[in-house]
Amino acid sequence: MTAPSLNVLSQHCPSHRVLEMVTGKWSVLVLYALRGSTLRYSELEGTIGGISQKMLTQTLRELERNGLVERTAYPVVPPRTEYRLSPLGESLNRIVTDLGLWAQDHMPAVLAARQDYDRRHSK
Amino acid sequence: MTAPSLNVLSQHCPSHRVLEMVTGKWSVLVLYALRGSTLRYSELEGTIGGISQKMLTQTLRELERNGLVERTAYPVVPPRTEYRLSPLGESLNRIVTDLGLWAQDHMPAVLAARQDYDRRHSK
Repeated sequence: MTAPSLNVLSQHCPSHRVLEMVTGKWSVLVLYALRGSTLRYSELEGTIGGISQKMLTQTLRELERNGLVERTAYPVVPPRTEYRLSPLGESLNRIVTDLGLWAQDHMPAVLAARQDYDRRHSK
Repeated sequence: MTAPSLNVLSQHCPSHRVLEMVTGKWSVLVLYALRGSTLRYSELEGTIGGISQKMLTQTLRELERNGLVERTAYPVVPPRTEYRLSPLGESLNRIVTDLGLWAQDHMPAVLAARQDYDRRHSK
């Protein structure tokens, strides 16, 4: 349950910073890629278009630090590291999936609105 | 329905850019503030903690351009401008509300995970 004193709109509320952490394109895409799968670093890199190694490493570290992603390093040669959603990350899974599907479903409407706006404002 | 060729994870897919637009802390907070309400600029500014006028103006313009927010300017003195979710913005309403509530509900778990991670990694 949400305590009545929490307000995600207030920058003084800790939940504001939590929202900040789970928004951000790369966090959302990594969580989206991990829904229902355990993936190796190289698989994540291959799945998420346009992410640099630096940004992927940084995003994974932040998601692990915030308890959303679990990292398992296997002591084998060559080293193998796998990532999966933690139970806390799983609790965000449906929302992230809905967000990804929304973007795919409503892409034509957004692009049409943008063209219309740009046409009206370029006169 | 999602066309099979759309893939939000690919940077070449237009839905990738749509996701980019709806993630981002300020976009999410403005959409969250407008759920179920028509608000004036000054009301938005007062509701969303820590947002600068420049960032609020820019975020509202992007959301209007992308068809998520409708802006109505009334020809009165002093001028009055109101913002509300468009039907397209309404279709994102439940997801944004869920995201805001998730951040509020899971804030203690995220903060606990972060403290635990920082303690383990500061040794």
